[in-house]
Amino acid sequence: MKLARFKQGNSIALGVVEGDRVIPLDGLGFTTMLDIITGGEAALAKIRDHAATAQGGLALADVELLAPIERPGKYLAIGMNYGKHLEEADRLGVARSAHQVWFNKQTTCVSGPYDDIDPGVTEKLDYEVELGAVIGKTAKKVAEADALDHVFGYLVANDVSARDWQFHSSTFTMGKSFDTHGPIGPWIVTADEVPDPQALDLRCIVNGEVRQSNNTSNMIHSLRQQIAYLSTAFTLDPGDLIATGTPEGVGVGMEPQQFLQPGDVVRCEIDGIGAIENRVVAKA
Amino acid sequence: MKLARFKQGNSIALGVVEGDRVIPLDGLGFTTMLDIITGGEAALAKIRDHAATAQGGLALADVELLAPIERPGKYLAIGMNYGKHLEEADRLGVARSAHQVWFNKQTTCVSGPYDDIDPGVTEKLDYEVELGAVIGKTAKKVAEADALDHVFGYLVANDVSARDWQFHSSTFTMGKSFDTHGPIGPWIVTADEVPDPQALDLRCIVNGEVRQSNNTSNMIHSLRQQIAYLSTAFTLDPGDLIATGTPEGVGVGMEPQQFLQPGDVVRCEIDGIGAIENRVVAKA
Repeated sequence: MKLARFKQGNSIALGVVEGDRVIPLDGLGFTTMLDIITGGEAALAKIRDHAATAQGGLALADVELLAPIERPGKYLAIGMNYGKHLEEADRLGVARSAHQVWFNKQTTCVSGPYDDIDPGVTEKLDYEVELGAVIGKTAKKVAEADALDHVFGYLVANDVSARDWQFHSSTFTMGKSFDTHGPIGPWIVTADEVPDPQALDLRCIVNGEVRQSNNTSNMIHSLRQQIAYLSTAFTLDPGDLIATGTPEGVGVGMEPQQFLQPGDVVRCEIDGIGAIENRVVAKA
Repeated sequence: MKLARFKQGNSIALGVVEGDRVIPLDGLGFTTMLDIITGGEAALAKIRDHAATAQGGLALADVELLAPIERPGKYLAIGMNYGKHLEEADRLGVARSAHQVWFNKQTTCVSGPYDDIDPGVTEKLDYEVELGAVIGKTAKKVAEADALDHVFGYLVANDVSARDWQFHSSTFTMGKSFDTHGPIGPWIVTADEVPDPQALDLRCIVNGEVRQSNNTSNMIHSLRQQIAYLSTAFTLDPGDLIATGTPEGVGVGMEPQQFLQPGDVVRCEIDGIGAIENRVVAKA
């Protein structure tokens, strides 16, 4: 199923997307996406039954989709996780690591699938298409073989990056989390509909030009390995969000470098998941 | 005021600490510390009135204090922010930065002022006493001069660190957030009672031996500068937690290096704020 959050008048609603319609989950007792996630299989079965008998729904074109998960407990992202992107990082002087390289996007940066991107104070605004995974079941010291059992579903993430601020220090923290720099969506595709998260074509298109085009099979560290590694150190909670890395083709890696400008439209697509599209606006 | 969270039977209560007593805030309509923080001056006035007329309260020794703020939206910490600690980092090969160096502690690591520390998988467990600041009012592009207006109060933080995992990559992410590695407390001292956060003696004592002893006047980047810098990039929300850096004397900087072992008791004190004390237990 494709589970979405959207604006319905002045309130926020949850729904199932089927084709070009969204069926609201009215009266099922779920207030937040996290309610559905923590509700587990029983919650999903209830929603399936509801969708099977519901009439009509709303035209997707008539509603405003929101970030499909409310502000998560944590939003972790892995760096340098596709071979040729790693080479881009080498050229920028980023130290190689024998281990997975993780940083946080502050949860305040999360925004909707079609929301505007505010450059803020950066002069070097960049895009990164990534497969996002939403944790479904608490994960602590999870083996690789079991890791995907802890995933609730998948979404498209643009790990928007302020490259000047990213390289203020080796921790990346400051340039990964400007407000509006975390568009996600357009919905969560439940894990049962994504048999292999390591076999998905993904691409990023800027003003109609394909900048990134790759397949999640080319990750250096698979999502299974990511969950195993993270959960060896600390607990992943339901609703936590993981961005699994971006392939080559980012603006900071181009020669000459090419950064996003006001008016640019960035589209991130993952086959089988969906597409998000965000316009860069003038600095607020 | 000193505002605390504590266990009362099977539920969690809020209270004001006065001497060796805690006065529960029953019937005032606050469910969480964040309720109080977002309630602003009116909430504090209500609590002051309540405390002035309340009878007795509970003996502090009879209650279990909890982390004084529920899981915050973000928990940010600055590295290399005292001169001699910066020299320790130099010796460990940490790259110097012209800017403030920020990393996240995952919010799942937050624990209570007297909770046990579980080493988890680290072989290099270390302590870091730090002044913690709790954001009171939303901060975005705040000038240094106004920065402290956005602070609700202060607490003692131990930025417990797994040094082996910290240096898995230059981002520090993995070694700063093991579960139980974020003891804070023992309460929040409201900002009105801390006229100058840059004039506080702080120390860390391991098994009775003073390992760190310094004053917050020796920070390289003051809390004002920290809030200004962070909020230039992104929004700080009420309840967000900032750890303002640790002085020299950490175990990884000693020659020979000396890491925490099961049975060790780590006490972090800040004059005018309070003390937290945590025992290292055997790996779970």
